[in-house]
Amino acid sequence: MTKLYVVGTGPGDKDLIAPKAIAAVKASDELVAYGLYLDLLGDVCDGKKHHDLPLGEEIGRARLALNLAASGKTTALISSGDIGIYAMATLVFELLDQQLQGKENHPEWLDVDIEVVAGISAMQAAASRVGAMLGHDFCTISLSDLLTPWETIEKRLHSAGQGDFVVSFYNPRSKKRDWQINTARDVLLQYRPASTPVVLGRQLTREDESITITTLDKLDAKDVDMFTLVSVGNSETRHISYDDKQWVYTPRGYSKKL
Amino acid sequence: MTKLYVVGTGPGDKDLIAPKAIAAVKASDELVAYGLYLDLLGDVCDGKKHHDLPLGEEIGRARLALNLAASGKTTALISSGDIGIYAMATLVFELLDQQLQGKENHPEWLDVDIEVVAGISAMQAAASRVGAMLGHDFCTISLSDLLTPWETIEKRLHSAGQGDFVVSFYNPRSKKRDWQINTARDVLLQYRPASTPVVLGRQLTREDESITITTLDKLDAKDVDMFTLVSVGNSETRHISYDDKQWVYTPRGYSKKL
Repeated sequence: MTKLYVVGTGPGDKDLIAPKAIAAVKASDELVAYGLYLDLLGDVCDGKKHHDLPLGEEIGRARLALNLAASGKTTALISSGDIGIYAMATLVFELLDQQLQGKENHPEWLDVDIEVVAGISAMQAAASRVGAMLGHDFCTISLSDLLTPWETIEKRLHSAGQGDFVVSFYNPRSKKRDWQINTARDVLLQYRPASTPVVLGRQLTREDESITITTLDKLDAKDVDMFTLVSVGNSETRHISYDDKQWVYTPRGYSKKL
Repeated sequence: MTKLYVVGTGPGDKDLIAPKAIAAVKASDELVAYGLYLDLLGDVCDGKKHHDLPLGEEIGRARLALNLAASGKTTALISSGDIGIYAMATLVFELLDQQLQGKENHPEWLDVDIEVVAGISAMQAAASRVGAMLGHDFCTISLSDLLTPWETIEKRLHSAGQGDFVVSFYNPRSKKRDWQINTARDVLLQYRPASTPVVLGRQLTREDESITITTLDKLDAKDVDMFTLVSVGNSETRHISYDDKQWVYTPRGYSKKL
């Protein structure tokens, strides 16, 4: 039996990595991941063979993981966060699907036993660090238009606005993409107040974590980079503060019953 | 310093509970939770005082947790999944907000040091068990109209359809609410094909887990109960099968580049 673990290691804090993820890494001989993710994992990676590929080589990374596993080496494909959310897991299945359609020539991939281990995603880390921002219906939108046409993204922005969902933006900005987050802000401002709470979480749960609570009208690309998770409240999300404490929460409506 | 941990223990599998959640329970003297959640935690709860309240007493549970913590007892308020997603965390902050507005008379609550520990939510467990269903933009909608007017929920269903989000339904059905999931299906059928993959995950990652992969036109309330997480794919979500394997994944569009 050949085995491929597809593992999410959570937002960064080692204490937020599920034991199942650690066990999967331990059971593996070969690790396919960015070096940074392995640094977060620590000792458990010692003695494993580590395969890295440059950013942008996502397909290559998934292909390598399938090839290694198919060759009989127990392999872990690793990303931070939840590997099932805007991450590598879906690429593994896209490749298998291509094989089934005869567009690849790797029948051995189909013999690989695949196990996906979910992890805590950045939006959850952000929500927990500020209180309970995801307390009611929410959506996620990736602002990367490398693979998704901008028209599709813009349609989703309008839908998120119309539906009054809390919105978490993944991939809000990169070196080459600097205008999308401001456009997203302007779309949402058509549907919800300028005072809507916004949370910028950078390097969440890591040593250099920084969290900024602002408002929708003040959201600006200059305060956002590729390590930032941006969450925008819905029309009922509240920002409260007292003493040295600040919280952002999205009510479910219990207070009407209090 | 008085301390309240607000802790999510993940979908059910003990190996999916973050070490940080275990540590929070260990550090606490008093636990406020359904008994079932503590059964999942196991030994770590031994010797702690356990407070339970009937289903429907959510406000009472949050209030009790704040009162216990404010009285100087380190307390953990616990739920399964991510306590920040459709769960108890937001109630704690709703109560604090009420206090700040002078609608409660518990100034001692404001001295409580609160720490929220996120967990893996049911939608993530479902997605990982079938492959990578949340590989692209998604939303969550609670179908409980106990606190949210049905008009708001229906508006969100239409928005989810228009935006072509993968949709995960929480609280899809209860003893008294049996028609909402079928109405939700009918709304989504206005926007995406009858053949859209749907995943029903019941008791996810637990011993009696059952997972059914079906299609949107065949989604029916009779196959859903209050322990079921229902995820509906977007228009590009694929269900593939070979040998004894079945996977559902939502592509990000890499295959166009293959």
